[in-house]
Amino acid sequence: MLNNRTVAAALLSATLALPAMAQFQKPEDAIKYRQSALTLLAAHNGRVAAMANGRVPFDAKVAAENAALVETLSKLPWAAFGPGTDKGDTRALPAIWAEPAKWQQAITRFQTDAIALNTAAKTGDLEAIKKASGALGQSCKACHDSFRGR
Amino acid sequence: MLNNRTVAAALLSATLALPAMAQFQKPEDAIKYRQSALTLLAAHNGRVAAMANGRVPFDAKVAAENAALVETLSKLPWAAFGPGTDKGDTRALPAIWAEPAKWQQAITRFQTDAIALNTAAKTGDLEAIKKASGALGQSCKACHDSFRGR
Repeated sequence: MLNNRTVAAALLSATLALPAMAQFQKPEDAIKYRQSALTLLAAHNGRVAAMANGRVPFDAKVAAENAALVETLSKLPWAAFGPGTDKGDTRALPAIWAEPAKWQQAITRFQTDAIALNTAAKTGDLEAIKKASGALGQSCKACHDSFRGR
Repeated sequence: MLNNRTVAAALLSATLALPAMAQFQKPEDAIKYRQSALTLLAAHNGRVAAMANGRVPFDAKVAAENAALVETLSKLPWAAFGPGTDKGDTRALPAIWAEPAKWQQAITRFQTDAIALNTAAKTGDLEAIKKASGALGQSCKACHDSFRGR
């Protein structure tokens, strides 16, 4: 059965053409890149989440701008988890490379929820943003629980 | 006289609404954020530059995707150079805060050239991309020469 997640995942596969190989000269470049992308993701997701949680006043324009960035950034980190990037200054767990299907599933879930947050934010409906932000937060947490060490 | 840079700068002022204040809890968060944004900028700009310089084969789709990211990312680092973020794990020079007009000019030049690169990349015309990539590289260098230490 086709559901929203399936459709979104298919769209992602079609549009995410940034080639995964040969982007980084050294493993440490890939690690620095993916950490940078995840730092920006956390910052911009955090700005939406702060509004969703009522910690800062809701501003629909700011929420939409940050959610759009979250969707754009959600595509970036994953190509930098290539072979040989499991060692070094990284909290990435071996499960990323040992369980590629589960890893890919976590990425797809995250990206799908990032798209849903952006879609919700474009409507300016705070209740929809709250729901989408909560789902995205759960995606972040689930992936960190399985694939990120301390 | 209105030229492309003037127009682009005016557009930027109109669209760049991400508020500069109260985004970061601590100065070190701002420093980490801006370094992350600049790391991603360097990576994606580098992918276009490598094609412009003939170091990797030209792929119009990849160039366009990376140039679009360069334009998006070109808006991000600057809000994180707020007061109190001049100390710590940073190569940012005091000139950033001592010469705000010159600093703003460097940012505007960079963002304008990033927009121009994206515009060129959308055409798929390698010669136009080469020219825009060269100009953007000069913007990067000029800003680093004046505002980034070693």
